[in-house]
Amino acid sequence: MAAQTFSRRNLNFLLHEVFKAEELTQHPYFKDYSREAFDMVLDSATEISEKILLPVFTEGDRTPPELRNGEVKVHPAVGRFLKAVGDAGLLGAGFPVEHGGQQLPELVNSAVAFILGAGNNSLIMFKGLTEGAAHLITSFGLPELTQTYVPNMLAGTWTGTMCLTEPQAGSALADVATTATPQPDGSYRIRGQKVFISAGEHDQADNIVHLLLARIDGAPKGTKGISLFVVPKKRLDGSDNDVTPTGLYHKMGQKATPAMHLTFGDRDDCHGYLVGEPHRGLAYMFQMMNEARLGVGLCGAYIASAAYYASLRYAQERPQGRRLNNKNPDEPPTLIINHPDVRRMLLFQKAVVEGALSLILEACRYVDLTRVTEGEEREGYELLLDLLTPIAKTYPAEAGIRAVSEGLQVLGGYGYTEDFPLEQYYRDIRITSIYEGTTTIQSLDLLARKVTQKGGRGLQKLLAEITQTLDDARTFDDLQPYTNRLTEEIARLQDVTRHLLDLLATGDAERACADATLYMEQFGLVTIAWQWLKQAVVAKRALVGGAPEGDESAFYEAKLHTMKFFFRYELPKTLGLAARLLDTEALTLPTEAGVML
Amino acid sequence: MAAQTFSRRNLNFLLHEVFKAEELTQHPYFKDYSREAFDMVLDSATEISEKILLPVFTEGDRTPPELRNGEVKVHPAVGRFLKAVGDAGLLGAGFPVEHGGQQLPELVNSAVAFILGAGNNSLIMFKGLTEGAAHLITSFGLPELTQTYVPNMLAGTWTGTMCLTEPQAGSALADVATTATPQPDGSYRIRGQKVFISAGEHDQADNIVHLLLARIDGAPKGTKGISLFVVPKKRLDGSDNDVTPTGLYHKMGQKATPAMHLTFGDRDDCHGYLVGEPHRGLAYMFQMMNEARLGVGLCGAYIASAAYYASLRYAQERPQGRRLNNKNPDEPPTLIINHPDVRRMLLFQKAVVEGALSLILEACRYVDLTRVTEGEEREGYELLLDLLTPIAKTYPAEAGIRAVSEGLQVLGGYGYTEDFPLEQYYRDIRITSIYEGTTTIQSLDLLARKVTQKGGRGLQKLLAEITQTLDDARTFDDLQPYTNRLTEEIARLQDVTRHLLDLLATGDAERACADATLYMEQFGLVTIAWQWLKQAVVAKRALVGGAPEGDESAFYEAKLHTMKFFFRYELPKTLGLAARLLDTEALTLPTEAGVML
Repeated sequence: MAAQTFSRRNLNFLLHEVFKAEELTQHPYFKDYSREAFDMVLDSATEISEKILLPVFTEGDRTPPELRNGEVKVHPAVGRFLKAVGDAGLLGAGFPVEHGGQQLPELVNSAVAFILGAGNNSLIMFKGLTEGAAHLITSFGLPELTQTYVPNMLAGTWTGTMCLTEPQAGSALADVATTATPQPDGSYRIRGQKVFISAGEHDQADNIVHLLLARIDGAPKGTKGISLFVVPKKRLDGSDNDVTPTGLYHKMGQKATPAMHLTFGDRDDCHGYLVGEPHRGLAYMFQMMNEARLGVGLCGAYIASAAYYASLRYAQERPQGRRLNNKNPDEPPTLIINHPDVRRMLLFQKAVVEGALSLILEACRYVDLTRVTEGEEREGYELLLDLLTPIAKTYPAEAGIRAVSEGLQVLGGYGYTEDFPLEQYYRDIRITSIYEGTTTIQSLDLLARKVTQKGGRGLQKLLAEITQTLDDARTFDDLQPYTNRLTEEIARLQDVTRHLLDLLATGDAERACADATLYMEQFGLVTIAWQWLKQAVVAKRALVGGAPEGDESAFYEAKLHTMKFFFRYELPKTLGLAARLLDTEALTLPTEAGVML
Repeated sequence: MAAQTFSRRNLNFLLHEVFKAEELTQHPYFKDYSREAFDMVLDSATEISEKILLPVFTEGDRTPPELRNGEVKVHPAVGRFLKAVGDAGLLGAGFPVEHGGQQLPELVNSAVAFILGAGNNSLIMFKGLTEGAAHLITSFGLPELTQTYVPNMLAGTWTGTMCLTEPQAGSALADVATTATPQPDGSYRIRGQKVFISAGEHDQADNIVHLLLARIDGAPKGTKGISLFVVPKKRLDGSDNDVTPTGLYHKMGQKATPAMHLTFGDRDDCHGYLVGEPHRGLAYMFQMMNEARLGVGLCGAYIASAAYYASLRYAQERPQGRRLNNKNPDEPPTLIINHPDVRRMLLFQKAVVEGALSLILEACRYVDLTRVTEGEEREGYELLLDLLTPIAKTYPAEAGIRAVSEGLQVLGGYGYTEDFPLEQYYRDIRITSIYEGTTTIQSLDLLARKVTQKGGRGLQKLLAEITQTLDDARTFDDLQPYTNRLTEEIARLQDVTRHLLDLLATGDAERACADATLYMEQFGLVTIAWQWLKQAVVAKRALVGGAPEGDESAFYEAKLHTMKFFFRYELPKTLGLAARLLDTEALTLPTEAGVML
């Protein structure tokens, strides 16, 4: 039997009991689905995860790809995986049927990714990148671009990439310098360097379709002069398209997926095809980037999930030491799960994994609802999604990194060795606070853009959602301490928000946003507390109404227990964060004189 | 020029301006030293660090030792390093002259280790382990044991190890099962398994001297039946002593130092020699363990130091993006050190590195003072040392891990690659919260033992020391906000301490200590705030009294700035910790029914 890396029971709880996936099937767009159909999709993902992905998780790390003679060989399981998800209809399952997809709700599609990623967070990237690239083409490209490229991508025979970052610019996309020169046939000649291109070169697909940002000759400087192109590795006639893998990064983790330095147009013969209108590339890319950000958040959650179950298993099997109230050496050692600090580390992991996953699935539900609603209702979901996306990217990444670290710590010295998977999870998950916009960038996005945009209506919408949860929770006396705590936290977050928006209104954005990362941390804690209270309401209803027994009862009790843990161990961190955020002494602004760092 | 990994200016500040190393030379024991002599020692360490250690830092990680045919080849720089420190008199420099040492104050000796470790945290372990083993022999062994083993160890031709951990027992030393059977000649036959033995086998010394815990036949169970033995790899006649390297752990970091699984007495022919009295081995080991714990704290600090300077260098050289108040794409990108969140990450690192180092050097000063004082005065320093040791081990480890993570984050995607040393520091430092007693164990030691022992006199002593610093700080009006804050924090720590000690007095140690790790975190923050205020007083005096110019003025201003940063960004975390610690809802105790984790 494969080692447990996720809880199907918890996925069912979130999908069906908390987020009511079946209700989506009442909308025509999702009408072909049912609970049974969703279950079959998850079963299929589980089989691929356990049979193809998990067995090569360690091996993929120990035998990472290298660039040799312009070629990169990746683990052959990549090809098996792409074929399996292609055959199972899991590649682009969330796309509309007209674009070759299955119109699977994003809620369930993300559960699929959670299952696959918990098995192998490195190999699943080939799927996510291919879908992201295909989605850009179907969303903004001319129909012939879609017809030419997308079917092979969704079949798993071609893969895709996102080519944004350049060596001199890093996250600063305004400084993209790759050029696109128009040709008489309507195509462009591409010339430039792109770095950190995940799956940018490998031997497990017949072609690689790069989605690339470049500047058409004469385009304005800055973000308003960037266009989006399809640049295949091979042209349709099979000839080489002058895309050269010039370097391979040796990463600390996620080693099975090569991150490439690619040179486009070294021989001035790299053909690119414009996607959508000129100069709108960044806007297109950002629509996909938002999906990608939820994907990175999910990655934080699924790596933390796999690490949690690995450390839980160890704690349930490893005898060591004695309980503090009974240190009699004549008695056998106790299992380490009976040591309170080990339980604290396990509960912290569970609180992070299940809290983070809940938030991401909530965001996915909003994605689904934007697809089946219109007008003001739809705009409401878009506002919620816009506001929550940077948080749903950042909390799972940052808290996930700490959760995996606690998982490693549960194993003591063994956790630091390759004999157990924790050290690999620890290395793998570290990238999540960097990918698709670092935590700093997400935090600036939250404070300077999302909280203020459209008159702060996104925040109002969120507060209305949280108020609904608080009202639901108030029907249970047991939950009162927690409704009170969350109510206080909302007030505290509003105080801090007002303070920062007042500063922002002075026009000194640099100063107002200096501690945006701490604001993100506070906002994240409150958001996850909301998700935990929401789960607690559902658990409480099940315990009161259904009188479940045995494991079912224990499942719901554990939900309540973990909610309490989050409120009593994690949520108090807002006290220190708010104290700093309300403190007006600026200490991190660059000064003329310069403090010697 | 070698890349900067530490600040000599800061070491001089701490050694001479804060901790007055020269004052120690007024005591007869240290009378042969002077400021100039200390400088020469540090110069010598710097040369070894820059010429021998740092150049192989990366290579040692990329070509880790393997166990092949019972042999382990380590990087040949290990041998060069041991010879260099042996020749320079830096091996056992802190030992009394009568034991082959130089009577170097521990204050300066730790500065030496800081310099060496910042260059290569893996190779320096061969030195630390050899000194620890030699120190056990000289402190507790018969003179002939010292004569037989120690001179070669301090010359760098033999190395030492500490063999405590066993596969079935882990941290639970009460369960040590290795046996020692008395022989007619006074020696013992040793039989057992030891795991995680750093430098337990390698090819860069003529012999390896294991200091091993075992149970003499018929000894009582538990901690009271454990004895300490010298077990050499080779006997004095050069013959093999039946110590078999049966496994080599593949670690996530510190790869250049092999961690071995050793089998003693596989052929029942492993000779061991008792150190000190039977059954007192654990007490002996713990005296050395306290030194080793300060050493691990120092390791957290020097890895964080090397990471800090690597990320600072990058931030000072890397242009990217524009300042928030001026996003004009026509202007060139700014250096990333001008982004507030990057400055925050750099200041955090500086605050951790220099705060942690200060605390460790304070503890080392207490070590020195115990050597030159007597009676009640000496007991006072011992109490302070006992109390501060678990904190000086844990804060640098835990905060250091976070500091290095921020260092990696400063580099964005590049930080995740092998092109820069950050990812290696990130992997290397992770062990520090595990080595020599995990954070959990240190925290239990602090709360259940150190705070309570001898009627709480250690804590009283510490409060008296902090009060002295507060009195000094009150002479500067500018420091008033910070004296007020620290005063509040002392009160908060006392409230929490009283609450926990009241719980402990009920006899339910398990419950009282359930959140010992959070108590450690709060205690650590307050202790480091004290160290920062102490540094600020010295900086303030220098600025007011000496009117320093240029870099010197900037150095002191940076000290004040970093103190403020620590107080305003880190110290508020005590609010959340205290809220949890005063909360009486227990959530991590093992229950009969058991919550499904």
